[in-house]
Amino acid sequence: MAVVVLLSDFGLEDPYVGLMHCVLAGISPEARVVDFCHSVPAQDVEGGAWLLGSAVDYVPQDAIVVGVVDPGVGSTRRSILVRTDKVFLVGPDNGLFTKWYEFDPPKEAWVLENAEFHLDRVSATFHGRDIFAPVAGWLAEGKDPKFFGPKVSLKSLERLDLPRMRVFSDKVEGQILYSDSFGNLVTNIERGKVPADARGPVRVCGRELPLVRTFADVSKGAVLAYFGSMGLLEIARRQGSAADLLAARRGNRVQLFFGEAS
Amino acid sequence: MAVVVLLSDFGLEDPYVGLMHCVLAGISPEARVVDFCHSVPAQDVEGGAWLLGSAVDYVPQDAIVVGVVDPGVGSTRRSILVRTDKVFLVGPDNGLFTKWYEFDPPKEAWVLENAEFHLDRVSATFHGRDIFAPVAGWLAEGKDPKFFGPKVSLKSLERLDLPRMRVFSDKVEGQILYSDSFGNLVTNIERGKVPADARGPVRVCGRELPLVRTFADVSKGAVLAYFGSMGLLEIARRQGSAADLLAARRGNRVQLFFGEAS
Amino acid sequence: MAVVVLLSDFGLEDPYVGLMHCVLAGISPEARVVDFCHSVPAQDVEGGAWLLGSAVDYVPQDAIVVGVVDPGVGSTRRSILVRTDKVFLVGPDNGLFTKWYEFDPPKEAWVLENAEFHLDRVSATFHGRDIFAPVAGWLAEGKDPKFFGPKVSLKSLERLDLPRMRVFSDKVEGQILYSDSFGNLVTNIERGKVPADARGPVRVCGRELPLVRTFADVSKGAVLAYFGSMGLLEIARRQGSAADLLAARRGNRVQLFFGEAS
Repeated sequence: MAVVVLLSDFGLEDPYVGLMHCVLAGISPEARVVDFCHSVPAQDVEGGAWLLGSAVDYVPQDAIVVGVVDPGVGSTRRSILVRTDKVFLVGPDNGLFTKWYEFDPPKEAWVLENAEFHLDRVSATFHGRDIFAPVAGWLAEGKDPKFFGPKVSLKSLERLDLPRMRVFSDKVEGQILYSDSFGNLVTNIERGKVPADARGPVRVCGRELPLVRTFADVSKGAVLAYFGSMGLLEIARRQGSAADLLAARRGNRVQLFFGEAS
Repeated sequence: MAVVVLLSDFGLEDPYVGLMHCVLAGISPEARVVDFCHSVPAQDVEGGAWLLGSAVDYVPQDAIVVGVVDPGVGSTRRSILVRTDKVFLVGPDNGLFTKWYEFDPPKEAWVLENAEFHLDRVSATFHGRDIFAPVAGWLAEGKDPKFFGPKVSLKSLERLDLPRMRVFSDKVEGQILYSDSFGNLVTNIERGKVPADARGPVRVCGRELPLVRTFADVSKGAVLAYFGSMGLLEIARRQGSAADLLAARRGNRVQLFFGEAS
Repeated sequence: MAVVVLLSDFGLEDPYVGLMHCVLAGISPEARVVDFCHSVPAQDVEGGAWLLGSAVDYVPQDAIVVGVVDPGVGSTRRSILVRTDKVFLVGPDNGLFTKWYEFDPPKEAWVLENAEFHLDRVSATFHGRDIFAPVAGWLAEGKDPKFFGPKVSLKSLERLDLPRMRVFSDKVEGQILYSDSFGNLVTNIERGKVPADARGPVRVCGRELPLVRTFADVSKGAVLAYFGSMGLLEIARRQGSAADLLAARRGNRVQLFFGEAS
């Protein structure tokens, strides 16, 4: 059974996500559709790229991943289908899949030019419903990618220049990516690129924080740093909002010191 | 595989939608249930009617559409099942399906009086869980509509007197229906009833706006009018909220001028 | 087809629920996953326990119920699987299933110690994704509970000391449990434990309210008491918020008087 995974910035207040589900159910009634996240901040392609990157390890093999954060809808940006080792990616060619490509590189790509697999009337503002959902539905039904449009070079795929962490002899340096709804600050410092025995402290917004394993390691109200469930360094406040307390914003510098050898 | 499509004003903060899903899964474990929209403003039957109307073209053929915006629950309003060419409609007979009937007229209707297909205990406040979900589940299992209750005349079905757009020689006139969560204002001016070469401008709340194809056609902060993804004229502000800027409310008059022949 | 029912305090703003869905779809693509409620107030184990209790009658027979309200994640609290007559329960052993046990007692229980059925990397902060979702997925695939870890005594299962209603000769006394998103106040006074001919009034927050059947029985703006769709006494305001008007809080005393025999 095909699994279709959806990410968008539509939120759940409006019927937009529901309309994509309706179109998918009409074309591929047997496919299983999973809402990964529809709360990407509006038109925040970079935020969507980080969130998609955090899902690579958890999305099922051979899933069809539809991403719709699409400020350029109705302009000249291309609509694409990308095959990787793990999944198919469907969405606008605006860099939304940048982080996914990093973990699971593109192997083939097509431009979705064949209107036969779009809805009869394609609006200028909602390709999620009119192009991406139907293409995902037909893919779920087993249609070969070559029918959706001409192949394009992998080099031509749009990629964002995302902020990268920098590794020094005594520390790594990155930045705040976004705040989740609890006020936890997610950074671009990846656990896999930090020495396993790094001990902290962490410096951010003029503060020095302990590097701990989990919330329970500090007292209530204290601010802490830890590697979160996405494998990224996070800054949080136990029973509070670190984002509010630190008045932190995307792009603020974060330093993780390795500390003395143990 | 049967597809069940849900619309309600329950929101997703409370367990009400989840309870409907549980009941459906218990009766028809194979049915596919799609959440179309649960963010209809509380008890706003008219708002729900417009939203359902916008879904007619996208809901799959033979789906079972359950609508629950039901301020009269527990009173004498009837619970109904309506067969159209495209779908089954299940819900309160309070006009919620008015707009759907317009695009896909009722062919047969029944009153849901047979308690055998309701839950054992029917509450006075939650027929979505106790009557509509189980009836939809049994329909999905292939039960014939005649078992749910006596047939009623199509004329007896409740219809709302929804505001209609008016067509003049040089313009059409309608009104604002609602604001979506981005502050885009949706009107009742339907693209299909406007001359294809209508050029604008659009007048609303004392302003004159350009009629354009999409957001990208105006500069940031500008207010625009365009035919949105539901085929209705919408008023929006690029990277902002038109609802806030114009202090617009439901019922405000909107005029679309046809302009000079091109 | 296996049905998996999810409850958590993750909300839908973040990708946490979506990640659980992805893991479930990867392990058990055929299982049907139902979102019961993800809006339990953050870390409110007691609130989650009441909500789960309200679902017992509606969750399908043989479902797999996953509950994740887990302030102790990463500490020493156990992860458990509990078999009842009706369902399997999967989650932290922190009392979250207290109310469920009351209606549908535990018959067997296991501690989820076998890492073979967890994700390869188990984070310290997100067992919903790393332990509970995969175990639920394998259960849905028919794996025997004994493979997940050693059996434990039913007595050892954690239970909360939830506030109980008290029955007197002329009244029952309970308290406010929580407010739903409409401002309706849900109490712990259960219909089944109140004489069928109890007539009211209801006293709460210094007010005396009529006991009625449904909203339509009072005028707009009036405050009323009624047995809600969960079988619990609720306090509401017609077309308004009782929580705001009464400034009510969890724990406030509520008295329902039986009144004169009719």
